[in-house]
Amino acid sequence: MTTESWVEADEDAGFGIENLPYGVFARPGELPRVGVAIGDRVLDLAAMSAAGLVEDRHYFASGSLNAFMVAGRGAWRANRERVTELLTDASYRDRVEPHLLPVADVELLRPFEVADYVDFYSNEYHAVNAGRMMRPHGDPLPPNWKRLPVGYHGRSGTVYPSGTPIIRPCGQRRAPGGGEPSYGPSQRLDFEAEVGFVAGVPSSAGRGVAADAFRDHVFGFVLVNDWSARDLQAWESQPLGPFLGKSFATSVSSWVVPVAALEAARVEPPVQDPAPLDYLRCAEPWGLDLRLEVLINGQVAARPRFASMYWTSPQQLAHATVNGAPLRTGDLFASGTVSGPERDQRGCMLELSWNGEEPLELPDGTKRTFLEDGDTVTIRAQAPGAGGSRITLGEVTGTVHPAQG
Amino acid sequence: MTTESWVEADEDAGFGIENLPYGVFARPGELPRVGVAIGDRVLDLAAMSAAGLVEDRHYFASGSLNAFMVAGRGAWRANRERVTELLTDASYRDRVEPHLLPVADVELLRPFEVADYVDFYSNEYHAVNAGRMMRPHGDPLPPNWKRLPVGYHGRSGTVYPSGTPIIRPCGQRRAPGGGEPSYGPSQRLDFEAEVGFVAGVPSSAGRGVAADAFRDHVFGFVLVNDWSARDLQAWESQPLGPFLGKSFATSVSSWVVPVAALEAARVEPPVQDPAPLDYLRCAEPWGLDLRLEVLINGQVAARPRFASMYWTSPQQLAHATVNGAPLRTGDLFASGTVSGPERDQRGCMLELSWNGEEPLELPDGTKRTFLEDGDTVTIRAQAPGAGGSRITLGEVTGTVHPAQG
Repeated sequence: MTTESWVEADEDAGFGIENLPYGVFARPGELPRVGVAIGDRVLDLAAMSAAGLVEDRHYFASGSLNAFMVAGRGAWRANRERVTELLTDASYRDRVEPHLLPVADVELLRPFEVADYVDFYSNEYHAVNAGRMMRPHGDPLPPNWKRLPVGYHGRSGTVYPSGTPIIRPCGQRRAPGGGEPSYGPSQRLDFEAEVGFVAGVPSSAGRGVAADAFRDHVFGFVLVNDWSARDLQAWESQPLGPFLGKSFATSVSSWVVPVAALEAARVEPPVQDPAPLDYLRCAEPWGLDLRLEVLINGQVAARPRFASMYWTSPQQLAHATVNGAPLRTGDLFASGTVSGPERDQRGCMLELSWNGEEPLELPDGTKRTFLEDGDTVTIRAQAPGAGGSRITLGEVTGTVHPAQG
Repeated sequence: MTTESWVEADEDAGFGIENLPYGVFARPGELPRVGVAIGDRVLDLAAMSAAGLVEDRHYFASGSLNAFMVAGRGAWRANRERVTELLTDASYRDRVEPHLLPVADVELLRPFEVADYVDFYSNEYHAVNAGRMMRPHGDPLPPNWKRLPVGYHGRSGTVYPSGTPIIRPCGQRRAPGGGEPSYGPSQRLDFEAEVGFVAGVPSSAGRGVAADAFRDHVFGFVLVNDWSARDLQAWESQPLGPFLGKSFATSVSSWVVPVAALEAARVEPPVQDPAPLDYLRCAEPWGLDLRLEVLINGQVAARPRFASMYWTSPQQLAHATVNGAPLRTGDLFASGTVSGPERDQRGCMLELSWNGEEPLELPDGTKRTFLEDGDTVTIRAQAPGAGGSRITLGEVTGTVHPAQG
């Protein structure tokens, strides 16, 4: 059953009453604060709190979601229910409407302060494709891949809000055939279409977070573009993994979609064979039917499906904490590139152009192997919401600027 | 020339007037604040500021060094000169002495808030030894190793102050011979003796920090114990590097030794062949003659020498930022395990026991392959200071507690 909001919203746009994602925005000359998206408006929660319309313990007149994220599931649920009530009960309209601002009139900022950033590698199609290209002489999947969600720590200081210019990184590269390494701008700049989740409630050192406790700790989901310099990455990664090939930039979407908004998107994940160890088991299915769309300069380049992820978000959370590393508010976990069995489902240029060997032709006829200066990459996603509605994960976008080195 | 302080200090102890490291301390029931070590005392800089004795722009009545670290080289130099004056000119004694507290009466806390944490792998002896053990069938050094300082991002949320109990991590391991992986406490728990530096002054996105600008950005040095679970690490690391085998705990020393205090310790680093690319060149020699000592339960287990590091700290800084990733205040960079050509210079149990095959015998006759519950690991270091003095890098210590999983 879909509840109706008195705010006019294009149902296909996916920002209806079933979504209500959180973000941080500012108007010119004003301090940043927390808002909720509805239709093409943003509900100013700081102003709503000042007007006595929502409960606020200093959550909302803040430049980040962190204070609200740490408040926990009870506070998240209570605020979601209250906002739903205010936006559906027309008797509130006169009091609420002054606090609804056109999204077009505000600047959307980075929604939360990132504590640690972990990036996984949990899509089997992507891992097999990358393995075939990077390690052509062995099994494309390393022996651990189906036993645990492989991941590594990225740089939290370069997690940027959607819209931040992406400066082409310089660094040390070696030509694919070998030879002397040289310094210069990356010549194989790539995007990676990923989905991330952000922790709100911390956990204790020494004890892991069970997969089934996912909802008690995780505030919501974002879209992530894990920009990658493939030439830097290929040369540097032995034996300790990616470093400068990733650390120049990671972009996240402006809106954080609450976990509760994606309940209707839950589906059975792919069968896991061999069966995972107990600490990686989850009583509920946590595949998520998110349909991603990657656009290069406005042209659809790929349509990856998140439902194909081999390892689910709760399994990633359980794994990342099983060694006793505590969660902090703002810990961001990205899924790894979302890919699929079809060419048009691949979530990065490395796969789409098969390591540069098969240029991708966009609908307008332009071709790409890797990204060129001036290219704009936009990732967006939709999911089924409650009552047959649509939920949009707000876009993450970035334009490549020339190297400054 | 050694300047004399009116504070009595055991010259061999290395906390004389030439050192003056910074830390954060608290007395029971009081808020944390910034202090400087001299002899067996800590000079309370917050109280000194309240008494009008040192200039303070809200640097010192703070629970971390971050506010002072961001103030930059001019502020660091001015405060160091002022503290030196106050502690050497006996006419200040009556006014300063009330603010000198016995170190034994205070609790030393984590000295700074860590932004991002990067761990390098810059000691050739360690890299060769680890390569021989982990990849016995190939060249122990990967082809990139002498071209760039290999490194990766660690977990900043688990950088703990010296003295924090280290809970043995649980996780997924596989027996060295192969077979099915299983879950349980790490059976190959290790330390790594490292030296770290911490950034104070941020840099801009898109532009690297030149090696020669090291002193403009870096506040000081600490000792680091990069605790490692070798069994977790070996199983998880392909292809993206270490993750849970490292992320449970990293310990840092309580005192941050200013870069200026280590000028007399600078030595020529090992010859680099092949010559590094231009962005990795440094006009000044930045080898550092730090002599480390690793103690297990009070017994000397190893004496690694930091002067043997192949890649120097300014080279590490230049490399980590060459892709345009900006520095943030509190960014911590660890050197990688310090090792050497002799067995007693090896800085981790993996090397000292040759992957568990040759147990290490401690002076009291006890033997170890890896760490046991209850073991206390302490790393300390001394360096030459100005005028023939000694500089101590205050110890980093931690005791292994049983797994809680």
